[in-house]
Amino acid sequence: ALVTDRGNFPTDRYVLEGIAAQRGLDLRLFDGEPDAATLPCGHGDVVVLSQVGYRSGALADLPALQAAARERGATLIWDLSHAAGAVPVDLHAAGAELAVGCTYKYLNAGPGAPAYLYVAAGLQGELRSPIWGWFGQRDQFAMERDYDPEPDIRRYLAGTPPILGLAAVEEGVRLTAQAGIAALRAKSIGLTELLIALHDAWLAPLGFELASPRVAQRRGSHISLRHPRAWQVTRALIERCDVVPDFRGPDSVRLGVAPLYTRHVDVWDALDRLRDLVERGEHETVDATPGRVT
Amino acid sequence: ALVTDRGNFPTDRYVLEGIAAQRGLDLRLFDGEPDAATLPCGHGDVVVLSQVGYRSGALADLPALQAAARERGATLIWDLSHAAGAVPVDLHAAGAELAVGCTYKYLNAGPGAPAYLYVAAGLQGELRSPIWGWFGQRDQFAMERDYDPEPDIRRYLAGTPPILGLAAVEEGVRLTAQAGIAALRAKSIGLTELLIALHDAWLAPLGFELASPRVAQRRGSHISLRHPRAWQVTRALIERCDVVPDFRGPDSVRLGVAPLYTRHVDVWDALDRLRDLVERGEHETVDATPGRVT
Repeated sequence: ALVTDRGNFPTDRYVLEGIAAQRGLDLRLFDGEPDAATLPCGHGDVVVLSQVGYRSGALADLPALQAAARERGATLIWDLSHAAGAVPVDLHAAGAELAVGCTYKYLNAGPGAPAYLYVAAGLQGELRSPIWGWFGQRDQFAMERDYDPEPDIRRYLAGTPPILGLAAVEEGVRLTAQAGIAALRAKSIGLTELLIALHDAWLAPLGFELASPRVAQRRGSHISLRHPRAWQVTRALIERCDVVPDFRGPDSVRLGVAPLYTRHVDVWDALDRLRDLVERGEHETVDATPGRVT
Repeated sequence: ALVTDRGNFPTDRYVLEGIAAQRGLDLRLFDGEPDAATLPCGHGDVVVLSQVGYRSGALADLPALQAAARERGATLIWDLSHAAGAVPVDLHAAGAELAVGCTYKYLNAGPGAPAYLYVAAGLQGELRSPIWGWFGQRDQFAMERDYDPEPDIRRYLAGTPPILGLAAVEEGVRLTAQAGIAALRAKSIGLTELLIALHDAWLAPLGFELASPRVAQRRGSHISLRHPRAWQVTRALIERCDVVPDFRGPDSVRLGVAPLYTRHVDVWDALDRLRDLVERGEHETVDATPGRVT
Protein backbone atom coordinates (compact mmCIF):
# COMPACT_ATOMS: atom_id res chain seq x y z
CA ALA A 1 0.00 0.00 0.00
CA LEU A 2 0.87 3.68 -0.23
CA VAL A 3 0.80 5.26 3.23
CA THR A 4 0.71 8.86 4.44
CA ASP A 5 -0.87 10.96 7.17
CA ARG A 6 -4.15 12.69 6.48
CA GLY A 7 -2.52 15.98 7.59
CA ASN A 8 0.21 15.80 4.96
CA PHE A 9 0.38 18.49 2.30
CA PRO A 10 -2.39 18.12 -0.34
CA THR A 11 -0.10 17.54 -3.32
CA ASP A 12 1.62 14.70 -1.46
CA ARG A 13 -1.76 13.09 -0.85
CA TYR A 14 -3.14 13.80 -4.32
CA VAL A 15 -0.06 12.44 -6.08
CA LEU A 16 -0.27 9.24 -4.02
CA GLU A 17 -3.99 9.04 -4.77
CA GLY A 18 -3.19 9.36 -8.48
CA ILE A 19 -0.51 6.66 -8.38
CA ALA A 20 -2.79 4.38 -6.39
CA ALA A 21 -5.58 4.85 -8.94
CA GLN A 22 -3.29 4.23 -11.91
CA ARG A 23 -1.62 1.17 -10.43
CA GLY A 24 -4.49 -0.35 -8.52
CA LEU A 25 -2.77 0.12 -5.15
CA ASP A 26 -4.32 0.84 -1.78
CA LEU A 27 -3.86 4.30 -0.29
CA ARG A 28 -3.81 4.21 3.51
CA LEU A 29 -4.24 7.55 5.32
CA PHE A 30 -3.60 7.69 9.05
CA ASP A 31 -4.58 10.42 11.51
CA GLY A 32 -2.32 12.34 13.82
CA GLU A 33 1.39 13.16 13.72
CA PRO A 34 3.72 10.43 12.40
CA ASP A 35 4.99 8.36 15.33
CA ALA A 36 7.76 5.76 15.20
CA ALA A 37 6.04 3.42 17.64
CA THR A 38 2.80 3.31 15.70
CA LEU A 39 3.90 3.90 12.08
CA PRO A 40 1.21 1.97 10.19
CA CYS A 41 3.21 0.22 7.50
CA GLY A 42 4.54 -3.22 6.68
CA HIS A 43 6.66 -5.04 4.15
CA GLY A 44 6.60 -3.50 0.67
CA ASP A 45 4.62 -0.42 1.64
CA VAL A 46 5.74 2.99 0.46
CA VAL A 47 5.36 5.70 3.10
CA VAL A 48 5.48 9.45 2.43
CA LEU A 49 6.05 11.75 5.41
CA SER A 50 6.83 15.44 5.76
CA GLN A 51 9.66 16.18 8.15
CA VAL A 52 7.87 19.39 9.19
CA GLY A 53 4.08 19.45 8.95
CA TYR A 54 2.84 22.21 6.65
CA ARG A 55 -0.02 23.12 8.94
CA SER A 56 1.09 22.42 12.52
CA GLY A 57 4.81 22.99 12.08
CA ALA A 58 5.40 19.76 14.03
CA LEU A 59 8.90 18.34 13.47
CA ALA A 60 8.95 14.59 12.94
CA ASP A 61 11.65 12.44 14.50
CA LEU A 62 13.32 11.56 11.21
CA PRO A 63 15.91 9.02 12.45
CA ALA A 64 13.36 7.16 14.60
CA LEU A 65 10.76 7.04 11.82
CA GLN A 66 13.36 5.96 9.28
CA ALA A 67 14.44 3.12 11.61
CA ALA A 68 10.81 2.12 12.17
CA ALA A 69 10.12 1.96 8.44
CA ARG A 70 13.28 -0.05 7.79
CA GLU A 71 12.39 -2.49 10.57
CA ARG A 72 8.96 -3.05 9.05
CA GLY A 73 10.35 -3.49 5.54
CA ALA A 74 8.72 -0.34 4.17
CA THR A 75 10.25 2.30 1.89
CA LEU A 76 10.08 5.83 3.27
CA ILE A 77 10.08 8.99 1.14
CA TRP A 78 10.66 12.25 3.01
CA ASP A 79 9.13 15.54 1.96
CA LEU A 80 11.56 18.19 3.19
CA SER A 81 9.67 21.20 1.82
CA HIS A 82 9.02 22.86 5.18
CA ALA A 83 12.27 21.64 6.75
CA ALA A 84 15.25 22.28 4.46
CA GLY A 85 16.91 25.57 5.35
CA ALA A 86 15.22 25.84 8.76
CA VAL A 87 16.08 22.61 10.60
CA PRO A 88 19.10 20.31 10.25
CA VAL A 89 18.40 17.39 7.92
CA ASP A 90 20.88 14.52 7.99
CA LEU A 91 19.53 11.93 5.58
CA HIS A 92 22.78 10.00 5.37
CA ALA A 93 23.17 9.55 9.14
CA ALA A 94 19.58 8.33 9.41
CA GLY A 95 20.05 5.88 6.55
CA ALA A 96 17.27 7.59 4.59
CA GLU A 97 16.87 6.40 1.04
CA LEU A 98 14.59 8.89 -0.69
CA ALA A 99 13.57 12.50 -0.24
CA VAL A 100 12.01 15.33 -2.21
CA GLY A 101 11.32 18.96 -1.47
CA CYS A 102 10.68 22.41 -2.80
CA THR A 103 13.00 25.42 -2.69
CA TYR A 104 10.14 27.86 -2.19
CA LYS A 105 10.14 28.02 1.60
CA TYR A 106 13.31 28.33 3.68
CA LEU A 107 15.61 27.96 0.71
CA ASN A 108 14.24 31.32 -0.40
CA ALA A 109 14.04 30.66 -4.14
CA GLY A 110 10.47 31.90 -4.59
CA PRO A 111 7.20 30.39 -5.78
CA GLY A 112 7.46 27.58 -8.31
CA ALA A 113 11.26 27.46 -8.17
CA PRO A 114 12.69 24.03 -9.06
CA ALA A 115 12.27 21.15 -6.63
CA TYR A 116 14.97 18.65 -5.71
CA LEU A 117 15.15 14.97 -5.02
CA TYR A 118 17.52 12.81 -3.00
CA VAL A 119 18.27 9.20 -3.87
CA ALA A 120 20.78 7.29 -1.73
CA ALA A 121 23.85 6.40 -3.80
CA GLY A 122 23.21 2.67 -3.66
CA LEU A 123 19.75 3.07 -5.18
CA GLN A 124 20.60 5.45 -8.00
CA GLY A 125 21.36 2.74 -10.53
CA GLU A 126 18.26 0.79 -9.61
CA LEU A 127 15.48 3.37 -9.69
CA ARG A 128 14.25 5.32 -12.70
CA SER A 129 12.23 8.45 -13.10
CA PRO A 130 8.83 7.66 -14.63
CA ILE A 131 9.43 10.57 -17.02
CA TRP A 132 12.15 9.73 -19.51
CA GLY A 133 13.58 12.94 -20.92
CA TRP A 134 16.65 13.96 -22.85
CA PHE A 135 18.53 15.47 -19.88
CA GLY A 136 18.60 12.06 -18.16
CA GLN A 137 20.00 10.36 -21.24
CA ARG A 138 23.57 9.12 -21.38
CA ASP A 139 25.39 10.99 -24.15
CA GLN A 140 22.46 13.37 -24.38
CA PHE A 141 23.32 15.02 -27.69
CA ALA A 142 23.87 11.83 -29.66
CA MET A 143 20.06 11.95 -30.04
CA GLU A 144 19.86 8.93 -32.32
CA ARG A 145 19.65 6.27 -29.67
CA ASP A 146 17.04 4.58 -27.53
CA TYR A 147 16.68 5.82 -23.98
CA ASP A 148 19.69 4.76 -21.94
CA PRO A 149 19.80 6.80 -18.74
CA GLU A 150 22.89 8.05 -16.94
CA PRO A 151 23.99 5.63 -14.22
CA ASP A 152 23.84 8.20 -11.39
CA ILE A 153 21.70 11.00 -9.98
CA ARG A 154 21.63 12.75 -13.38
CA ARG A 155 19.21 10.12 -14.67
CA TYR A 156 16.41 11.82 -12.73
CA LEU A 157 16.64 14.93 -14.88
CA ALA A 158 14.01 15.08 -17.63
CA GLY A 159 13.67 18.21 -19.74
CA THR A 160 15.81 21.33 -20.04
CA PRO A 161 16.19 22.76 -16.51
CA PRO A 162 14.36 26.04 -15.82
CA ILE A 163 17.32 28.41 -15.90
CA LEU A 164 15.69 31.51 -14.39
CA GLY A 165 14.31 29.48 -11.48
CA LEU A 166 17.68 27.81 -10.95
CA ALA A 167 19.37 31.20 -10.72
CA ALA A 168 17.07 32.00 -7.79
CA VAL A 169 17.79 28.61 -6.20
CA GLU A 170 21.50 29.20 -6.54
CA GLU A 171 21.30 32.46 -4.58
CA GLY A 172 18.80 31.16 -2.02
CA VAL A 173 20.85 28.07 -1.27
CA ARG A 174 24.13 30.01 -1.26
CA LEU A 175 22.85 32.44 1.37
CA THR A 176 21.44 29.58 3.45
CA ALA A 177 24.72 27.66 3.33
CA GLN A 178 26.68 30.79 4.14
CA ALA A 179 24.57 31.47 7.25
CA GLY A 180 24.90 27.83 8.30
CA ILE A 181 22.08 25.56 9.37
CA ALA A 182 23.12 25.55 13.07
CA ALA A 183 22.89 29.34 13.29
CA LEU A 184 19.62 29.36 11.33
CA ARG A 185 18.09 26.72 13.57
CA ALA A 186 19.14 28.62 16.72
CA LYS A 187 17.62 31.83 15.41
CA SER A 188 14.48 30.03 14.25
CA ILE A 189 13.96 28.63 17.74
CA GLY A 190 14.47 32.09 19.22
CA LEU A 191 11.87 33.54 16.86
CA THR A 192 9.25 30.87 17.47
CA GLU A 193 9.84 30.98 21.26
CA LEU A 194 9.19 34.73 21.17
CA LEU A 195 6.13 34.16 19.03
CA ILE A 196 4.70 31.66 21.50
CA ALA A 197 5.50 33.88 24.51
CA LEU A 198 3.73 36.85 22.91
CA HIS A 199 0.83 34.61 21.93
CA ASP A 200 0.47 33.47 25.55
CA ALA A 201 0.69 37.02 26.91
CA TRP A 202 -1.35 38.93 24.36
CA LEU A 203 -3.40 36.60 22.17
CA ALA A 204 -4.59 33.71 24.33
CA PRO A 205 -6.80 36.12 26.33
CA LEU A 206 -8.37 37.19 22.99
CA GLY A 207 -9.47 33.67 22.03
CA PHE A 208 -6.38 32.40 20.19
CA GLU A 209 -4.98 28.93 20.75
CA LEU A 210 -1.53 27.59 19.90
CA ALA A 211 -1.82 24.85 17.23
CA SER A 212 1.90 24.04 17.05
CA PRO A 213 4.14 22.11 19.48
CA ARG A 214 5.27 24.04 22.57
CA VAL A 215 8.56 22.18 22.82
CA ALA A 216 11.16 23.78 20.52
CA GLN A 217 12.74 20.43 19.61
CA ARG A 218 9.41 19.25 18.23
CA ARG A 219 8.68 22.09 15.82
CA GLY A 220 9.98 23.66 12.64
CA SER A 221 9.99 27.33 11.73
CA HIS A 222 6.33 28.23 11.56
CA ILE A 223 3.56 28.57 14.11
CA SER A 224 -0.16 28.14 13.61
CA LEU A 225 -2.63 29.97 15.79
CA ARG A 226 -6.23 28.82 15.94
CA HIS A 227 -9.02 31.38 16.07
CA PRO A 228 -12.74 31.02 15.29
CA ARG A 229 -12.45 33.89 12.78
CA ALA A 230 -9.07 32.88 11.38
CA TRP A 231 -9.99 33.73 7.78
CA GLN A 232 -11.02 37.28 8.61
CA VAL A 233 -8.02 37.74 10.89
CA THR A 234 -5.70 36.61 8.07
CA ARG A 235 -7.27 38.92 5.50
CA ALA A 236 -7.22 41.87 7.91
CA LEU A 237 -3.53 41.30 8.69
CA ILE A 238 -2.68 41.33 4.99
CA GLU A 239 -4.91 44.21 3.96
CA ARG A 240 -4.56 46.53 6.93
CA CYS A 241 -1.45 45.58 8.92
CA ASP A 242 1.22 44.80 6.30
CA VAL A 243 1.65 41.36 7.88
CA VAL A 244 1.35 38.38 5.52
CA PRO A 245 0.41 35.03 7.10
CA ASP A 246 -1.39 32.12 5.44
CA PHE A 247 -4.88 31.00 6.31
CA ARG A 248 -4.90 27.23 6.65
CA GLY A 249 -8.42 25.89 6.95
CA PRO A 250 -10.51 25.38 8.88
CA ASP A 251 -9.36 27.79 11.59
CA SER A 252 -5.63 28.57 11.54
CA VAL A 253 -3.47 31.64 10.95
CA ARG A 254 -0.03 30.36 9.97
CA LEU A 255 2.99 32.57 10.65
CA GLY A 256 6.22 31.48 8.99
CA VAL A 257 9.45 32.92 10.34
CA ALA A 258 12.31 32.59 7.85
CA PRO A 259 15.41 32.70 10.05
CA LEU A 260 17.55 34.12 7.26
CA TYR A 261 15.67 37.43 7.18
CA THR A 262 12.87 37.55 9.75
CA ARG A 263 13.96 39.62 12.76
CA HIS A 264 12.77 39.37 16.35
CA VAL A 265 11.34 42.88 16.02
CA ASP A 266 9.26 41.66 13.03
CA VAL A 267 7.69 38.98 15.24
CA TRP A 268 7.02 41.56 17.96
CA ASP A 269 5.47 44.04 15.52
CA ALA A 270 3.35 41.40 13.78
CA LEU A 271 1.85 40.12 17.03
CA ASP A 272 1.44 43.65 18.37
CA ARG A 273 -0.58 44.56 15.27
CA LEU A 274 -2.54 41.33 15.51
CA ARG A 275 -3.42 42.05 19.14
CA ASP A 276 -4.54 45.62 18.35
CA LEU A 277 -6.57 44.42 15.40
CA VAL A 278 -8.51 41.83 17.35
CA GLU A 279 -8.90 44.04 20.43
CA ARG A 280 -10.52 46.68 18.26
CA GLY A 281 -12.64 43.99 16.60
CA GLU A 282 -11.50 45.34 13.24
CA HIS A 283 -11.19 41.85 11.73
CA GLU A 284 -14.94 41.49 12.03
CA THR A 285 -15.42 44.22 9.44
CA VAL A 286 -13.56 42.16 6.80
CA ASP A 287 -15.54 40.20 4.22
CA ALA A 288 -15.94 36.67 5.58
CA THR A 289 -16.32 35.12 2.10
CA PRO A 290 -13.26 32.96 1.56
CA GLY A 291 -11.16 33.80 -1.53
CA ARG A 292 -9.05 31.39 -3.50
CA VAL A 293 -5.64 32.15 -2.02
CA THR A 294 -4.69 32.51 1.67
CA ALA B 1 0.49 1.19 -30.03
CA LEU B 2 2.34 4.45 -29.51
CA VAL B 3 3.57 5.82 -32.82
CA THR B 4 6.13 8.45 -33.77
CA ASP B 5 8.79 9.11 -36.37
CA ARG B 6 12.34 8.09 -35.67
CA GLY B 7 13.44 11.65 -36.46
CA ASN B 8 11.25 13.19 -33.77
CA PHE B 9 12.90 15.04 -30.89
CA PRO B 10 14.58 12.69 -28.39
CA THR B 11 12.41 13.62 -25.39
CA ASP B 12 9.28 12.86 -27.42
CA ARG B 13 10.67 9.44 -28.26
CA TYR B 14 12.06 8.74 -24.77
CA VAL B 15 8.82 9.72 -23.03
CA LEU B 16 6.87 7.42 -25.34
CA GLU B 17 9.42 4.66 -24.73
CA GLY B 18 8.95 5.14 -20.97
CA ILE B 19 5.16 5.03 -21.20
CA ALA B 20 5.31 1.97 -23.44
CA ALA B 21 7.60 0.20 -20.94
CA GLN B 22 5.41 1.09 -17.96
CA ARG B 23 2.15 0.13 -19.62
CA GLY B 24 3.27 -2.79 -21.73
CA LEU B 25 2.42 -1.02 -24.99
CA ASP B 26 4.16 -1.28 -28.34
CA LEU B 27 6.21 1.65 -29.54
CA ARG B 28 6.23 1.93 -33.32
CA LEU B 29 8.87 4.19 -34.90
CA PHE B 30 8.62 5.03 -38.58
CA ASP B 31 11.25 6.53 -40.86
CA GLY B 32 10.99 9.66 -42.96
CA GLU B 33 8.82 12.76 -42.68
CA PRO B 34 5.23 12.27 -41.50
CA ASP B 35 2.98 11.85 -44.51
CA ALA B 36 -0.82 11.85 -44.51
CA ALA B 37 -1.09 9.16 -47.18
CA THR B 38 1.15 6.71 -45.33
CA LEU B 39 0.64 7.62 -41.66
CA PRO B 40 1.22 4.24 -40.02
CA CYS B 41 -1.51 4.11 -37.39
CA GLY B 42 -4.82 2.44 -36.78
CA HIS B 43 -7.72 2.36 -34.36
CA GLY B 44 -6.71 3.17 -30.77
CA ASP B 45 -3.14 4.16 -31.56
CA VAL B 46 -1.65 7.32 -30.09
CA VAL B 47 0.54 9.23 -32.54
CA VAL B 48 2.99 11.98 -31.57
CA LEU B 49 4.22 14.27 -34.35
CA SER B 50 6.17 17.52 -34.39
CA GLN B 51 4.69 20.17 -36.63
CA VAL B 52 8.21 21.36 -37.47
CA GLY B 53 11.01 18.79 -37.32
CA TYR B 54 13.74 19.80 -34.85
CA ARG B 55 16.51 18.66 -37.18
CA SER B 56 15.34 19.19 -40.74
CA GLY B 57 13.00 22.11 -40.16
CA ALA B 58 10.40 20.32 -42.32
CA LEU B 59 6.87 21.64 -41.78
CA ALA B 60 4.26 18.89 -41.52
CA ASP B 61 0.86 19.29 -43.17
CA LEU B 62 -1.05 19.55 -39.90
CA PRO B 63 -4.63 19.56 -41.27
CA ALA B 64 -3.98 16.63 -43.61
CA LEU B 65 -2.24 14.55 -40.94
CA GLN B 66 -4.96 15.34 -38.43
CA ALA B 67 -7.60 14.19 -40.91
CA ALA B 68 -5.62 11.03 -41.68
CA ALA B 69 -5.34 10.15 -37.98
CA ARG B 70 -9.04 10.80 -37.40
CA GLU B 71 -9.96 8.64 -40.37
CA ARG B 72 -7.87 5.77 -39.02
CA GLY B 73 -9.31 6.12 -35.49
CA ALA B 74 -6.01 7.21 -33.95
CA THR B 75 -5.39 9.99 -31.43
CA LEU B 76 -2.82 12.55 -32.55
CA ILE B 77 -0.73 14.68 -30.18
CA TRP B 78 1.13 17.59 -31.77
CA ASP B 79 4.47 18.86 -30.52
CA LEU B 80 4.53 22.53 -31.47
CA SER B 81 7.92 23.33 -29.91
CA HIS B 82 9.62 24.35 -33.17
CA ALA B 83 6.47 25.80 -34.71
CA ALA B 84 4.66 28.12 -32.30
CA GLY B 85 5.73 31.71 -32.87
CA ALA B 86 7.23 31.00 -36.29
CA VAL B 87 4.46 29.41 -38.35
CA PRO B 88 0.67 29.77 -38.12
CA VAL B 89 -0.88 26.99 -36.02
CA ASP B 90 -4.63 26.59 -36.25
CA LEU B 91 -5.49 23.59 -34.08
CA HIS B 92 -9.17 24.40 -33.93
CA ALA B 93 -9.66 24.63 -37.70
CA ALA B 94 -7.87 21.31 -38.17
CA GLY B 95 -9.97 19.64 -35.50
CA ALA B 96 -6.84 18.84 -33.53
CA GLU B 97 -7.46 17.42 -30.07
CA LEU B 98 -4.15 17.55 -28.22
CA ALA B 99 -0.91 19.50 -28.43
CA VAL B 100 2.09 20.34 -26.29
CA GLY B 101 5.07 22.60 -26.78
CA CYS B 102 7.87 24.54 -25.19
CA THR B 103 8.24 28.31 -25.01
CA TYR B 104 12.01 28.15 -25.41
CA LYS B 105 12.23 28.59 -29.17
CA TYR B 106 10.19 31.13 -31.11
CA LEU B 107 8.16 32.21 -28.11
CA ASN B 108 11.42 33.62 -26.80
CA ALA B 109 11.02 32.71 -23.12
CA GLY B 110 14.45 31.15 -22.71
CA PRO B 111 15.77 27.72 -21.73
CA GLY B 112 13.58 25.66 -19.43
CA ALA B 113 10.74 28.18 -19.46
CA PRO B 114 7.32 26.60 -18.78
CA ALA B 115 5.74 24.41 -21.43
CA TYR B 116 2.08 24.50 -22.45
CA LEU B 117 -0.53 22.01 -23.43
CA TYR B 118 -3.68 22.20 -25.54
CA VAL B 119 -6.71 20.02 -24.92
CA ALA B 120 -9.78 20.53 -27.12
CA ALA B 121 -12.69 21.81 -25.04
CA GLY B 122 -14.76 18.67 -25.49
CA LEU B 123 -12.01 16.48 -24.06
CA GLN B 124 -11.10 18.57 -21.03
CA GLY B 125 -13.56 16.91 -18.69
CA GLU B 126 -12.62 13.46 -19.86
CA LEU B 127 -8.82 13.42 -19.67
CA ARG B 128 -6.69 13.75 -16.57
CA SER B 129 -3.10 14.62 -15.98
CA PRO B 130 -1.20 11.61 -14.62
CA ILE B 131 0.27 13.95 -11.98
CA TRP B 132 -2.37 14.99 -9.49
CA GLY B 133 -1.26 18.20 -7.80
CA TRP B 134 -2.87 20.89 -5.69
CA PHE B 135 -3.12 23.49 -8.48
CA GLY B 136 -5.45 21.21 -10.45
CA GLN B 137 -7.71 20.67 -7.47
CA ARG B 138 -11.18 22.20 -7.34
CA ASP B 139 -11.35 24.58 -4.35
CA GLN B 140 -7.57 24.30 -4.03
CA PHE B 141 -7.18 25.82 -0.60
CA ALA B 142 -9.81 23.72 1.14
CA MET B 143 -6.98 21.19 1.41
CA GLU B 144 -8.96 18.68 3.43
CA ARG B 145 -10.53 16.81 0.57
CA ASP B 146 -9.72 13.97 -1.75
CA TYR B 147 -8.49 14.88 -5.20
CA ASP B 148 -11.34 16.34 -7.21
CA PRO B 149 -9.92 18.15 -10.25
CA GLU B 150 -11.26 21.30 -11.84
CA PRO B 151 -13.64 20.52 -14.71
CA ASP B 152 -11.71 22.50 -17.34
CA ILE B 153 -8.18 23.20 -18.60
CA ARG B 154 -7.05 24.15 -15.06
CA ARG B 155 -7.11 20.47 -14.08
CA TYR B 156 -3.84 19.96 -15.95
CA LEU B 157 -1.95 22.20 -13.56
CA ALA B 158 -0.04 20.30 -10.88
CA GLY B 159 2.30 22.19 -8.55
CA THR B 160 2.86 25.89 -7.97
CA PRO B 161 3.67 27.46 -11.36
CA PRO B 162 7.26 28.66 -11.86
CA ILE B 163 6.73 32.40 -11.50
CA LEU B 164 10.07 33.66 -12.82
CA GLY B 165 9.79 31.47 -15.90
CA LEU B 166 6.20 32.60 -16.47
CA ALA B 167 7.29 36.24 -16.37
CA ALA B 168 9.60 35.47 -19.30
CA VAL B 169 6.80 33.62 -21.12
CA GLU B 170 4.48 36.57 -20.63
CA GLU B 171 6.92 38.93 -22.33
CA GLY B 172 7.92 36.48 -25.04
CA VAL B 173 4.34 35.70 -25.97
CA ARG B 174 3.27 39.33 -25.71
CA LEU B 175 5.95 40.43 -28.19
CA THR B 176 5.09 37.56 -30.52
CA ALA B 177 1.39 38.39 -30.46
CA GLN B 178 2.12 42.08 -30.96
CA ALA B 179 4.21 41.37 -34.06
CA GLY B 180 1.51 39.02 -35.39
CA ILE B 181 2.06 35.53 -36.72
CA ALA B 182 1.39 36.53 -40.36
CA ALA B 183 4.15 39.15 -40.30
CA LEU B 184 6.50 36.78 -38.46
CA ARG B 185 5.88 34.00 -40.94
CA ALA B 186 6.50 36.34 -43.89
CA LYS B 187 9.77 37.53 -42.38
CA SER B 188 10.80 34.00 -41.48
CA ILE B 189 10.32 32.89 -45.08
CA GLY B 190 12.36 35.88 -46.28
CA LEU B 191 15.17 34.97 -43.88
CA THR B 192 15.28 31.29 -44.78
CA GLU B 193 15.05 32.07 -48.53
CA LEU B 194 18.06 34.35 -48.16
CA LEU B 195 19.86 31.67 -46.18
CA ILE B 196 19.25 29.07 -48.87
CA ALA B 197 20.28 31.47 -51.66
CA LEU B 198 23.55 32.28 -49.89
CA HIS B 199 24.11 28.60 -49.19
CA ASP B 200 23.70 27.82 -52.88
CA ALA B 201 25.99 30.65 -53.96
CA TRP B 202 28.72 30.45 -51.32
CA LEU B 203 28.57 27.19 -49.39
CA ALA B 204 27.51 24.45 -51.79
CA PRO B 205 30.84 24.84 -53.67
CA LEU B 206 32.62 24.28 -50.33
CA GLY B 207 30.99 20.91 -49.68
CA PHE B 208 27.82 21.95 -47.86
CA GLU B 209 24.45 20.42 -48.65
CA LEU B 210 20.99 21.73 -47.79
CA ALA B 211 19.25 19.35 -45.35
CA SER B 212 15.97 21.29 -45.14
CA PRO B 213 13.09 21.60 -47.62
CA ARG B 214 13.66 24.00 -50.51
CA VAL B 215 10.00 24.92 -50.80
CA ALA B 216 9.15 27.67 -48.31
CA GLN B 217 5.68 26.26 -47.63
CA ARG B 218 7.25 23.03 -46.44
CA ARG B 219 9.64 24.40 -43.83
CA GLY B 220 9.67 26.18 -40.49
CA SER B 221 12.17 28.78 -39.32
CA HIS B 222 15.44 26.92 -39.19
CA ILE B 223 17.77 25.47 -41.78
CA SER B 224 20.17 22.57 -41.44
CA LEU B 225 23.30 22.40 -43.55
CA ARG B 226 25.14 19.12 -43.90
CA HIS B 227 28.93 19.08 -43.91
CA PRO B 228 31.38 16.22 -43.27
CA ARG B 229 33.04 18.30 -40.54
CA ALA B 230 29.84 19.77 -39.11
CA TRP B 231 30.99 19.48 -35.49
CA GLN B 232 34.19 21.42 -36.09
CA VAL B 233 32.38 24.00 -38.23
CA THR B 234 29.83 24.53 -35.44
CA ARG B 235 32.49 24.95 -32.74
CA ALA B 236 34.52 27.31 -34.91
CA LEU B 237 31.47 29.48 -35.63
CA ILE B 238 30.75 29.79 -31.90
CA GLU B 239 34.31 30.29 -30.72
CA ARG B 240 35.72 32.45 -33.48
CA CYS B 241 32.87 34.03 -35.46
CA ASP B 242 30.32 35.08 -32.83
CA VAL B 243 27.69 33.00 -34.67
CA VAL B 244 25.81 30.44 -32.54
CA PRO B 245 24.27 27.50 -34.40
CA ASP B 246 23.54 24.00 -33.03
CA PHE B 247 25.36 20.89 -34.10
CA ARG B 248 22.80 18.16 -34.72
CA GLY B 249 24.47 14.81 -35.25
CA PRO B 250 25.71 13.16 -37.26
CA ASP B 251 26.58 15.91 -39.71
CA SER B 252 24.40 19.02 -39.51
CA VAL B 253 24.90 22.66 -38.63
CA ARG B 254 21.50 24.02 -37.64
CA LEU B 255 20.81 27.73 -38.06
CA GLY B 256 17.66 29.01 -36.39
CA VAL B 257 16.31 32.37 -37.52
CA ALA B 258 13.94 33.88 -34.97
CA PRO B 259 11.81 36.23 -37.05
CA LEU B 260 11.14 38.52 -34.08
CA TYR B 261 14.74 39.66 -33.82
CA THR B 262 16.96 38.01 -36.46
CA ARG B 263 17.67 40.49 -39.27
CA HIS B 264 18.48 39.79 -42.90
CA VAL B 265 21.90 41.33 -42.33
CA ASP B 266 22.49 38.79 -39.52
CA VAL B 267 21.89 35.96 -41.99
CA TRP B 268 24.23 37.59 -44.51
CA ASP B 269 26.97 38.14 -41.92
CA ALA B 270 26.67 34.64 -40.47
CA LEU B 271 26.98 32.95 -43.86
CA ASP B 272 29.73 35.31 -44.94
CA ARG B 273 31.74 34.35 -41.83
CA LEU B 274 30.95 30.70 -42.38
CA ARG B 275 32.22 30.90 -45.97
CA ASP B 276 35.43 32.66 -44.92
CA LEU B 277 36.03 30.17 -42.15
CA VAL B 278 35.72 27.14 -44.37
CA GLU B 279 37.60 28.72 -47.29
CA ARG B 280 40.54 29.37 -44.96
CA GLY B 281 40.21 25.82 -43.58
CA GLU B 282 40.18 27.32 -40.09
CA HIS B 283 37.51 24.89 -38.83
CA GLU B 284 40.03 22.08 -39.30
CA THR B 285 42.16 23.56 -36.52
CA VAL B 286 39.31 23.11 -34.00
CA ASP B 287 39.36 20.14 -31.62
CA ALA B 288 37.29 17.41 -33.26
CA THR B 289 36.40 15.75 -29.94
CA PRO B 290 32.68 16.23 -29.46
CA GLY B 291 31.66 18.01 -26.25
CA ARG B 292 28.40 17.56 -24.39
CA VAL B 293 26.46 20.54 -25.70
CA THR B 294 26.10 21.73 -29.33
